Amino acid sequence: MCQKDSEVNVVDVQTRILARNDNTAAHNREHFLERDIFALNVMGSPGSGKTAVLEATARAFGDSRKLAALAGDLATDNDAARLRRAGLRARAIETGQACHLDAEMVHHELHHFDLAGVDYFFIENVGNLVCPAVYDLGQSANVVVLSVTEGEDKPLKYPTMFARADLVLLTKTDLLPHLPLVNVPAILDALARVMPDPRLIPISPLGGEGIIDWLDWLRMRRNAMLTTSEVFA
Amino acid sequence: MCQKDSEVNVVDVQTRILARNDNTAAHNREHFLERDIFALNVMGSPGSGKTAVLEATARAFGDSRKLAALAGDLATDNDAARLRRAGLRARAIETGQACHLDAEMVHHELHHFDLAGVDYFFIENVGNLVCPAVYDLGQSANVVVLSVTEGEDKPLKYPTMFARADLVLLTKTDLLPHLPLVNVPAILDALARVMPDPRLIPISPLGGEGIIDWLDWLRMRRNAMLTTSEVFA
Repeated sequence: MCQKDSEVNVVDVQTRILARNDNTAAHNREHFLERDIFALNVMGSPGSGKTAVLEATARAFGDSRKLAALAGDLATDNDAARLRRAGLRARAIETGQACHLDAEMVHHELHHFDLAGVDYFFIENVGNLVCPAVYDLGQSANVVVLSVTEGEDKPLKYPTMFARADLVLLTKTDLLPHLPLVNVPAILDALARVMPDPRLIPISPLGGEGIIDWLDWLRMRRNAMLTTSEVFA
Repeated sequence: MCQKDSEVNVVDVQTRILARNDNTAAHNREHFLERDIFALNVMGSPGSGKTAVLEATARAFGDSRKLAALAGDLATDNDAARLRRAGLRARAIETGQACHLDAEMVHHELHHFDLAGVDYFFIENVGNLVCPAVYDLGQSANVVVLSVTEGEDKPLKYPTMFARADLVLLTKTDLLPHLPLVNVPAILDALARVMPDPRLIPISPLGGEGIIDWLDWLRMRRNAMLTTSEVFA
């Protein structure tokens, strides 16, 4: 039946968009899993340090692991260019007006990628603490990058984003001595109120703090994925 | 006729939502103008310092001007509570899943406000550099709060937001000595590429830098509004 009321139509259209997105995300997930690739949706505010984290990750892994990335932004391929200079295989997705990546954008790019031998595939989402949380891209884990300069109540203000995070990377910790109003215990307290299993690694891409813990977490999660897929093979 | 294709429906629904929003925004604008209230849509990333700027504005104006504010967030009324403590009449709008305020949310709150004698009405939008740029709320000016910690290429990555800004307030400038990769001329250069009439005031709500320039800008813009409305009265 034809719905006349626009409010009903909005919900109807959103539901159909999300259902179609979930189908494509499941397809992306198969692409990753059949190649033993651990895929991550990396989210966070504009300027929280997502690209800097990925650059530092590439430097720290060196040649021991093969990394690839998609970098989403409304405009520019600045981040993808930075990531290529850091040694990742990287492509940009320019979303135009869209405030988040969706599974179809990722799927389209996957067919331009040489995925052979890739261990970790980072999908750097558009800088935004709202919309990216809702769209599954086919990833195995969600990582939220949160800068100490954003203050301590962001998890409470953006609960969906942090509730769905598997890990929070707390960046720019080298600035803490200059931020009299911010303290890490308060951030942890806020996270504990919204995150079912709160995990936070303080990380300073410039100073090196936390990088080893982050790499350990990546290895552990990828190994868990490989073990699970062997069990079910 | 009933449209079957979901793509057509999405555009159709978005167009109707924006048209309805524009009608309500025009109505809000009448509310403000008939009371000589200068209304501002204050936008920026999560943690860019929007609330801190408004707190500092209230302190600097003291009793000389009457300020009111709406503070939008997905969850919590933390910001409205902070603004009330700073002396503003303030109410929170909790948007739930919505990544921006819309004119209807603002209109609903206006009917709970005592607007008598208010000179400046600040609408602090949800922390987000994308969606808030698209929805007119009935304001007379757009102000974007950008923290130096976000880096220098944000105007290029979020061009719509900055293209529609009347003024950019550059916050946390006291951190510049600790940010070796950020410099203000590069931020200005990026702004000049997307903003038709680039205007930037560096402001440090904690240190006091720029507050006088910001108050002068507010007074000048409100006076221009009053003069224009007299001419057309």
